[in-house]
Amino acid sequence: MSANRYSQLFDRLVINAPFSSGAEDQLAEDCIDLVSGVPDPTLLPRDWFCEAMDKVMRSDLGDTALDYSAYGGTHELRSLVARWRGVPEDNVLITNGAMNGIYLSTFASINPGDVIVTEDPTFPFALRIFDLAGAHISTVPLTNEGLDLEALEALLRSPKGKQVKALYTIPDFQNPSGVCLDGGAKRRLMELSERYGFTVIADSPYDSLWFDTQPASFPQEYRTADDGSGLVEIGSFSKLFGPGWRIGWLIADRERVRKLEGFRARIDSHSNGVGQMIIASVLQDESRFHQLLDTQRATYRKRAGILYEALTEVLGSTVRARRPEGGYFLWGRFEDGWNPASAAAAGALARNGVSLVAGDAFRPDHKGCGEFRLCFSHVPIESLREGAVRIARAHAERE
Amino acid sequence: MSANRYSQLFDRLVINAPFSSGAEDQLAEDCIDLVSGVPDPTLLPRDWFCEAMDKVMRSDLGDTALDYSAYGGTHELRSLVARWRGVPEDNVLITNGAMNGIYLSTFASINPGDVIVTEDPTFPFALRIFDLAGAHISTVPLTNEGLDLEALEALLRSPKGKQVKALYTIPDFQNPSGVCLDGGAKRRLMELSERYGFTVIADSPYDSLWFDTQPASFPQEYRTADDGSGLVEIGSFSKLFGPGWRIGWLIADRERVRKLEGFRARIDSHSNGVGQMIIASVLQDESRFHQLLDTQRATYRKRAGILYEALTEVLGSTVRARRPEGGYFLWGRFEDGWNPASAAAAGALARNGVSLVAGDAFRPDHKGCGEFRLCFSHVPIESLREGAVRIARAHAERE
Repeated sequence: MSANRYSQLFDRLVINAPFSSGAEDQLAEDCIDLVSGVPDPTLLPRDWFCEAMDKVMRSDLGDTALDYSAYGGTHELRSLVARWRGVPEDNVLITNGAMNGIYLSTFASINPGDVIVTEDPTFPFALRIFDLAGAHISTVPLTNEGLDLEALEALLRSPKGKQVKALYTIPDFQNPSGVCLDGGAKRRLMELSERYGFTVIADSPYDSLWFDTQPASFPQEYRTADDGSGLVEIGSFSKLFGPGWRIGWLIADRERVRKLEGFRARIDSHSNGVGQMIIASVLQDESRFHQLLDTQRATYRKRAGILYEALTEVLGSTVRARRPEGGYFLWGRFEDGWNPASAAAAGALARNGVSLVAGDAFRPDHKGCGEFRLCFSHVPIESLREGAVRIARAHAERE
Repeated sequence: MSANRYSQLFDRLVINAPFSSGAEDQLAEDCIDLVSGVPDPTLLPRDWFCEAMDKVMRSDLGDTALDYSAYGGTHELRSLVARWRGVPEDNVLITNGAMNGIYLSTFASINPGDVIVTEDPTFPFALRIFDLAGAHISTVPLTNEGLDLEALEALLRSPKGKQVKALYTIPDFQNPSGVCLDGGAKRRLMELSERYGFTVIADSPYDSLWFDTQPASFPQEYRTADDGSGLVEIGSFSKLFGPGWRIGWLIADRERVRKLEGFRARIDSHSNGVGQMIIASVLQDESRFHQLLDTQRATYRKRAGILYEALTEVLGSTVRARRPEGGYFLWGRFEDGWNPASAAAAGALARNGVSLVAGDAFRPDHKGCGEFRLCFSHVPIESLREGAVRIARAHAERE
């Protein structure tokens, strides 16, 4: 590694857009957006936020909100996140959202030249962070039950296995595929982490947005450890309350949390106190909070079902799709070789007034095979049906 | 540089407390805090923040506040900061406060092993960031007119000069000393930056809190450049609206801003949107904003004068102090060899119920010579007088 590493990095830094279709200039005006992974704005409780702001600012809580606070987060929010997630407060660090959780945990576990293992497909914005850290990326495939643990173990046993210092997984309603790792698999993953000495970075922004069945947790002993548990769980309020708050959390062993506090002290001191105190105020009203979660789950569940059924109806066996069980996304694949990432397909989709993310964006080697991701969270029901029709229309234009 | 740089760094990361006196356990209960560099909480317009929150949340602005926004900041805040600071919007990047501005600009200009020049004394929290970046630190002394440019030029001409890649200065109401670099000196500094090829990181969180005379700007051509100006100006709303917002800005050439946007995309996407939109709403009412600034200036001016006069009255020529002309701090020095950093002095101060920061904290070599920094911003007038009396009492206990 050369001494001018940072300036080389800075020369390479660009705001690349992993989700660009390349056909943005052909987009119809009334385009149905099935790209953006954002909450439905009507499900964000703005009145409640205003109430909470008044409550905070008109009390002593306002002093905490406006002042410098602890690097790891305010006691108010940290303790409520700890209670909700079932871990001690010292195992929680408040972050600027999940992206920041990935950044912090990557730089705490990866040295330049190390290997980080990711799922294939995976979340491309995380890949940019691993690249910034100078990591080499190895991939393991997904099965219908999540990360393929046998393929992972084969990789760990191979000569390359010794360089594996971290694994990045999205264990619950994986982005993009929607698959989940069950409790037994989570335990086996942690056992591999102990045997082969790598950190598991488990990024789970959707785990509370399950439709029928709550996903299993990682084994509790790894979540509450004092030192060297090998597990970093990343969570976020972006999907529940809006990404604009830039408030999330990570759960790790206390020693790692302490070091990350020292890192935060040097990056930006701490996450914004006003947002922390407003979200703490919202979480404190547990029954209202769980009611909000229930409403979000029911809404997203309904939308997922409508999109899945519309897609199956209009495209039949041309598309193989997975019925979403939680989260924001439907993942599917054209079985007839039509690739939504091709310039012709991207153009046809844009002209027909629908945008989606082609599977290539989620493949570390950028080579998808006809897959696509559709986000249904923020899209009205009628537009979901119409979106499916437009995709079918674009597909019908193939040569 | 070894390949395991990051893990070495992480093993070293601690939440060290540069402002610790070592005598915290002896603190009297009604201690007068002259340490914390925070605004007077009664000068933070909480009602206005609540009004702005309502206005934002009950309009389309709420969508921008709650959604993902541009990496460099929302157009609303960026354009208002640009107008206030007299530069184009593309030269502005919204940060998570000044600390984050230092972090971003350091990693954009420094490679491990490079030399960064700082003033001596300087802000110790910045030194921790330079250490994290693997920089070597060289210092230049301060004169009554700020950074000693002749000493700087001598350093740049020395063999070590070739390794100098950045200079960190607090040009206006320097922390801790209170000195200012005038307009001519700012131009000469930028000329040196061009001649010797280093970046000037100008951290100025206090420049709008002048008492009688507004400090001079850096030459406009460096502030509005498209590429390679060599100047990064760092500003913050922490001192005006409260550090808890974690909103500040940096002004740099557009090419550097674009690269920093790419860096932010990988760290935490962007600064919190709710805070950005609330502060934008506040800034938009220009006359009310300037009235608030006037009130803050008048309050801090009055407090600075009272503390300076009380100190002079009770300690006479034992102390040489500088009458503050802006900012939050009074900087002084015991002329009789009494060093507030010594264990005996720290104990006497704590027992007498007053806390201050000894000069050693601001010296990169940790060797002060009887200096101290007193923060007056948040301290009621009676406590300022009493604080001076208690310092004199502690001093009288010397052996």
